[in-house]
Amino acid sequence: MAAPPRLSLSGVPGIPLIAPGDDLGAIIAAAMGRAGLACVDGDIIVVAQKVVSKAQGRFVDLTTVEPSARARAIAADTDRDPRLVEVILSESVNILRSDKRALVVEHRDGFVMANAGVDRSNVRAGGDETVLLLPRDSDGAAAALRATLEAHFGKTLGVVINDSFGRPWRRGTTGVALGAAGIPALEDLRGRPDLFGRVLEVSEAAFADEIAAAASLVMGQADEACPVVLLSGFPVQTQNLPARTLLRPPADDLFR
Amino acid sequence: MAAPPRLSLSGVPGIPLIAPGDDLGAIIAAAMGRAGLACVDGDIIVVAQKVVSKAQGRFVDLTTVEPSARARAIAADTDRDPRLVEVILSESVNILRSDKRALVVEHRDGFVMANAGVDRSNVRAGGDETVLLLPRDSDGAAAALRATLEAHFGKTLGVVINDSFGRPWRRGTTGVALGAAGIPALEDLRGRPDLFGRVLEVSEAAFADEIAAAASLVMGQADEACPVVLLSGFPVQTQNLPARTLLRPPADDLFR
Repeated sequence: MAAPPRLSLSGVPGIPLIAPGDDLGAIIAAAMGRAGLACVDGDIIVVAQKVVSKAQGRFVDLTTVEPSARARAIAADTDRDPRLVEVILSESVNILRSDKRALVVEHRDGFVMANAGVDRSNVRAGGDETVLLLPRDSDGAAAALRATLEAHFGKTLGVVINDSFGRPWRRGTTGVALGAAGIPALEDLRGRPDLFGRVLEVSEAAFADEIAAAASLVMGQADEACPVVLLSGFPVQTQNLPARTLLRPPADDLFR
Repeated sequence: MAAPPRLSLSGVPGIPLIAPGDDLGAIIAAAMGRAGLACVDGDIIVVAQKVVSKAQGRFVDLTTVEPSARARAIAADTDRDPRLVEVILSESVNILRSDKRALVVEHRDGFVMANAGVDRSNVRAGGDETVLLLPRDSDGAAAALRATLEAHFGKTLGVVINDSFGRPWRRGTTGVALGAAGIPALEDLRGRPDLFGRVLEVSEAAFADEIAAAASLVMGQADEACPVVLLSGFPVQTQNLPARTLLRPPADDLFR
């Protein structure tokens, strides 16, 4: 019998507060070096969405936002700040549900999520009137981080940018992949025989989302901010499918 | 700065094929012993739903199933085996969506999922005409496994029973907790200040689901069946909330 795999997940200590324009890849590589965390081929580095957004300068000062009539109407119906609703609408292409409990939208990049990912927590610049948007092109950002980290370490690596999403039917958020590079975000298990030689019914695993959720356990257990996690124990991935592969086309979707 | 947490996930080798009536807790403890895997206080053991179902003898021989008129109608509409539809209906309290792509139901135990979890893969007893149902009372099964494993190892442990669910809006399955014991399946983060002292907006994390997804990475990477995974690196959990805590009450649900 082949030895079952063993994975380790290490929070990377010492990531400083990130500011617009920071070279996040270089900062991560330096923090890993200071912490004595070495990479081997196949390792996957998970980076929290917030630090990617901050490095991209994705801040919006709500005092500069002029809500549209539509934003004001939704805000009045749902007890929200009309400026915040305006920002959410500007990040979205479609509203799935809108009520006092949640504003569930389709983000421009295809993610179906609450509030288009617009976040007020852990955002310092400008104080309480500042919000943070999702990164621009999360798959591209993951690929850029991967290029920096592979060049630095001289290893074949994967990168995932994660966020926490709520779900229908189940309480609580779980880690989800916004961006991925160097791994198959979706693993096609079709055609792989099960224990008894039949073909598996469950055909596709959301590998990048499970990576995102696992890293989220480490980020969430940290007393202090721990936006970067190193996952070791994977074989080198031979397939590279970005996180957008995980977006179910609306025509195939039973719930929109 | 406190050291960021480090987690390890170890597949437990040598779990034999499980048959109805097997003492799964004793089998897991013995396999861990043979593999030299020791527990420490706080460790969490994740067990795949299939082996729990097999130990409970949750097999149904389709040749003994007489489909109802309703099952025959749904089967005809959706190109399914009417006997399989009958089994799915008998496990369900509500149908959310029914078409050729998926039959999404509310399972008797509250899970919203495809096919009520009725599975034809990796089921040997009786051959191709046998299906496997979800465990009875997954939280109770997790608590029983926990009692056996805590008594064996003399440690304070958590147990999660996991399965893989599809999701709306996103392709691929991810690990989900059907049952949990000894951990807070849902972590309430409300009132925990963020980095800048404000109160977090994202208020609840589905801890047991993230544990389930992380373990699923190890189970999925194994060449052979690896239905048990040991997660180490957690503090002893002071709160015990079963997996049914994760079920969103239908009245609070925007998508049913």
